[in-house]
Formats: sequence, structure tokens, C-alpha cells
Amino acid sequence: MEKLPLVLDLSGTFVFALSGALAGTKRKLDLFGVLVLSFAAATAGGIARDVLIGAIPPASVSDWRYLGVSLFAGVITFYCSPLIERMSHSVLLFDAAGLALFAVAGASKALAYGLNPVMAVMLGMVTGIGGGMARDVLLAEIPIVLRAELYAVAALAAAAVVVFGHTLRLPVVPVAAVALILCFSLRVMAIKYGWRLPVAKV
Amino acid sequence: MEKLPLVLDLSGTFVFALSGALAGTKRKLDLFGVLVLSFAAATAGGIARDVLIGAIPPASVSDWRYLGVSLFAGVITFYCSPLIERMSHSVLLFDAAGLALFAVAGASKALAYGLNPVMAVMLGMVTGIGGGMARDVLLAEIPIVLRAELYAVAALAAAAVVVFGHTLRLPVVPVAAVALILCFSLRVMAIKYGWRLPVAKV
Amino acid sequence: MEKLPLVLDLSGTFVFALSGALAGTKRKLDLFGVLVLSFAAATAGGIARDVLIGAIPPASVSDWRYLGVSLFAGVITFYCSPLIERMSHSVLLFDAAGLALFAVAGASKALAYGLNPVMAVMLGMVTGIGGGMARDVLLAEIPIVLRAELYAVAALAAAAVVVFGHTLRLPVVPVAAVALILCFSLRVMAIKYGWRLPVAKV
Repeated sequence: MEKLPLVLDLSGTFVFALSGALAGTKRKLDLFGVLVLSFAAATAGGIARDVLIGAIPPASVSDWRYLGVSLFAGVITFYCSPLIERMSHSVLLFDAAGLALFAVAGASKALAYGLNPVMAVMLGMVTGIGGGMARDVLLAEIPIVLRAELYAVAALAAAAVVVFGHTLRLPVVPVAAVALILCFSLRVMAIKYGWRLPVAKV
Repeated sequence: MEKLPLVLDLSGTFVFALSGALAGTKRKLDLFGVLVLSFAAATAGGIARDVLIGAIPPASVSDWRYLGVSLFAGVITFYCSPLIERMSHSVLLFDAAGLALFAVAGASKALAYGLNPVMAVMLGMVTGIGGGMARDVLLAEIPIVLRAELYAVAALAAAAVVVFGHTLRLPVVPVAAVALILCFSLRVMAIKYGWRLPVAKV
Repeated sequence: MEKLPLVLDLSGTFVFALSGALAGTKRKLDLFGVLVLSFAAATAGGIARDVLIGAIPPASVSDWRYLGVSLFAGVITFYCSPLIERMSHSVLLFDAAGLALFAVAGASKALAYGLNPVMAVMLGMVTGIGGGMARDVLLAEIPIVLRAELYAVAALAAAAVVVFGHTLRLPVVPVAAVALILCFSLRVMAIKYGWRLPVAKV
């Protein structure tokens, strides 16, 4: 039971690292550039959260396993990028799973550090979307999470469920499970049916 | 009296959030993207300052009112962007007021955390210009504050007045008032007369 | 002996500030924008390292000499940019020296703050390459360190030597000298012979 969060966290790190590395190989970065993008995409959200709540050094800086998993994902992608791209639909599913997980983990950690409920929801969302934002800023693009199908909203929903459950003192594991399923399903259905938020009329 | 700084701080947050949201609607971001840009533009300067001086968690992360004000400004802009744009001259005035205020608040907070005078001036400036830089980096553009009419110089002047007054132990409120007026007038006159810093001959 | 690290550190700051300022003048930024780019390029790597290891406030924020050196380099570049550009081959040499130095200093500081060996190597690299990444992100470009000839690999090698020496309790000064020479030579030879890391076949 104790090890469950770590296993989930490292799985999230792995799939986000894949997405960063894929974006880097498409832009013709060299091997090192691809590994930096893997690590940035996998850990930027968690690092931002940890710096903001004062959990210094951040988990992904003090624990080498995050680095190891990111580099592993980066090297696989670099040498097998055609394969990874052919699997890109599965990558989207993994990515949705990673988003759900990081949002839940982020909100829980913010609560554990004593943040108020509203800001714990925010930090859960930041943990989920931060990696993708760092990846896109490093590639000099407008972050896709600012435009994609319900991406951040799904993270927000998961974080809100966690914080709501915490406030009502509901048992942690079932609440986390509901939050994970909610975020994952929202994101998968948004991709499938092209759900989007409205765009302002200018 | 006690509440004055907070009121001013939240007003600055509001106008900077408007500027972030306007930039987002012009780029056709969806509702969520617009809200993220509002929050980033309104709080990035203060967050950078707080992380650098060790005021963790940053005020805009621990106090939900900053978030509330940013979201409020973002939603208004999203649904009434033609109106806001027609008022864009007034927005520039508000923006100048926000800049003045954040520079003064930033320098004061840095002094309160024991930074030396030179760096307190720097952090005042960072607080003032950080939001605009984050907004432009997220939109994959060269930050306009690196090129606009005396933008950062006005913030620098206000922060310098605050630090100078602090060093001479002058009373706080009149010094802050002078700094605010100086920054606001510099910026407004720079816009009106097109004052710019020189560009290098290459 | 005591002052040696500071002297080296400020030399690194100077050459990185030159590189930031040159990039800014080429983009027609105004004087202030050029100075911001100088400071960002010279200090972003060290600031990132200090925030991540909890050394708050960062050295370049609490010690005004870093700011002074950056501004000095920025002003020189602004008013003499044709001269600096004509010397750009020497600037590349200085830049390689700065990279070596920051990587060594960064890894040593991370060890001093108790990070484990693997992450100390990472933070040495981050210290070396962070400035160049900040400079390029502010100019809305894909960071050149993600693509250049063995740039980050040279920093990584220097940091690894420092950490390896620390683990075996070898004397600090000779180890640092070996690390500096290794990084500097790797980078200079990579530029001379166009050594690059492979790019993925997509």
C-alpha cells in the first residue's frame, strides 16, 4: 500500500517523458535535447508545485528514480520514435492516465503542506499541466494545454474531487480512485468527441 | 490603513489580469487558456519575487483572493472582449497604475525580508515586470517589456525611491506615494510622447 | 585561496552576460532589454540551482556584485557591439570557460547542500546551461543548448568529474582543475571539428 503512490507517480513520469521526447525528435533535437525535453515534460509540474509549497529540494531533484525513468523513456523514444509514433493513440491514453495521476498526487501533497482547499485544487492542476507547458515553452510554442480539448479542466476536476473528499474527511483511497477515473474519462471522451471549451468572439 | 496595501495589491492584480486575458483572447485561446494567462500575468512577478526571497508559499498561492480577482478579470474579458478593447486606452492607464503599485510593493517586501538595497530595487522591478514577461513567454513572443517605452525603467525608478526612503528612514506612506506618482507619470508620458530607450547600432 | 571561487564565478558571469547582451542587440532590443538579457543569461542557471536546493535567496540575488558584473558586460556590449562581434570567436572561448566553471561550481554547491551524487551532477549541468536556455526562451527561440555541439555534454562531464572526486574523497582543487580542463577542451574541440550528438531518424 505504502509503495502505491510512488509506483503511480513514476508511471506518470514515464508517459509524460515519452510525450516530451516525441516532441523533441519531431523538432530534430539531438539526443541530449530530447533527454532534456523528456525530463522537463515529466517533472516541471511537480517541481513548480514543490517550489511553490516549499518542499525543497523537489522530489524529482532529490530522488534519482525520476531522472532514471525520464532518461529511459527518452532513450527509447529517440531510438524507436517511428514505433512510438505508431502507438501514439496509446500514448494519448497513457498521457490521460498520467494527467489524472499527477493532478491527484499534486492536490494531495498541497493539502499535506497545509495549503487552503482552493489553492490545493490549483496546485493539483499545475502539477498535471506544468510538464506540458514547459515542453512547449522550450520549443517556442504556445502551450497546447492552453488550447486542447478539456485538458486542464480534467486535471482541475480530479484535484477538486481530492480536496472535496479531504474536506469531508472521506477515506483517501476511494476518493483518489474516483478522481483518477473522472479525470481519465473526461480527457478520453474529450479527445474522442472533440469536446472543447468556447473561444471568445473578437 | 492596514488594509490599504492589500486593496492596492488586488487592484494591480486585477488590471494585470485584464492585460493577460486580452492577449489570450486575441490569440484565440479557449476559456481556460485565457484564465491561465490572466493568472500568470497577474501573479508571475509576485511569485518570482516570493520564491527568490524565500516567502514560501507565495502570497498569490496561499491567499485565494488573488486567484479570485484574476479569474473574475479573465471571465469579464472573455465575454466582453470587444468592450475591453474599446477601453484599451484606459487599460493602459490602469496597467501603468498596476506597474507602479507592484514595483512599490515588491521593493518594500524585499526590504522587509532583509535584502540589501541594490537587490531590493531589482526585486521591485521584477515584481512589476514579471507578469508581462510570463504572459509573453507563454504566447511564444519576445516580452514587450524588453522593448516598450520606458516600461521597466519606470518600475525601477519607483523601486529606487522606496529603497532610498527606507535607507534614510523617511516615513513610509509619503515615500510610497511619491514612488507611485513617479512611476505612473513616467509611464504615461512615455506612452504619450513615445519616449524610448536607445537601441544599439549593429 | 578563499577568494578563488568567487573570482572564477564572477568571470563566468561576465562572459555569459556578454553572450546574453549580444543576442539582445542583434534582436534590436532597447538598452534595458539588453541589460535584462545579460542578467538572465548570466544568472538563470545559478538561480535555478539555488531555488531547487533551497539556497534562498540565491547568491546572484543577495550579492550585488553579480548584478554589477552583468550590467557592466551589458553596457559594454550595447555601446561596442560591433567590436564584441568581431571578437566573437574569443567570446566562444570565454563562453566555454564560463560553462566549465559554472558546471564545476554548481556540482560542488549541490554536494555541499547534501544532494545525492546523481542529482549533484544534474544540477551542475543545469547551472552551466540554464543561462543560455533562459536567454533563448526570452527571445522566443528553441534553446540552442538543446541542439549545439556537445554543449550540455561538456557541462555534464565536468560535473561528473567533480562528483566522482568527491565520492572518492580526492583533494578538491586538482579534481576541479581536471573537470574545468575536460569541459573546456571538449567544448572547444566540438566547435572546431563540428562534433554533434546524433539526431533521431523520424
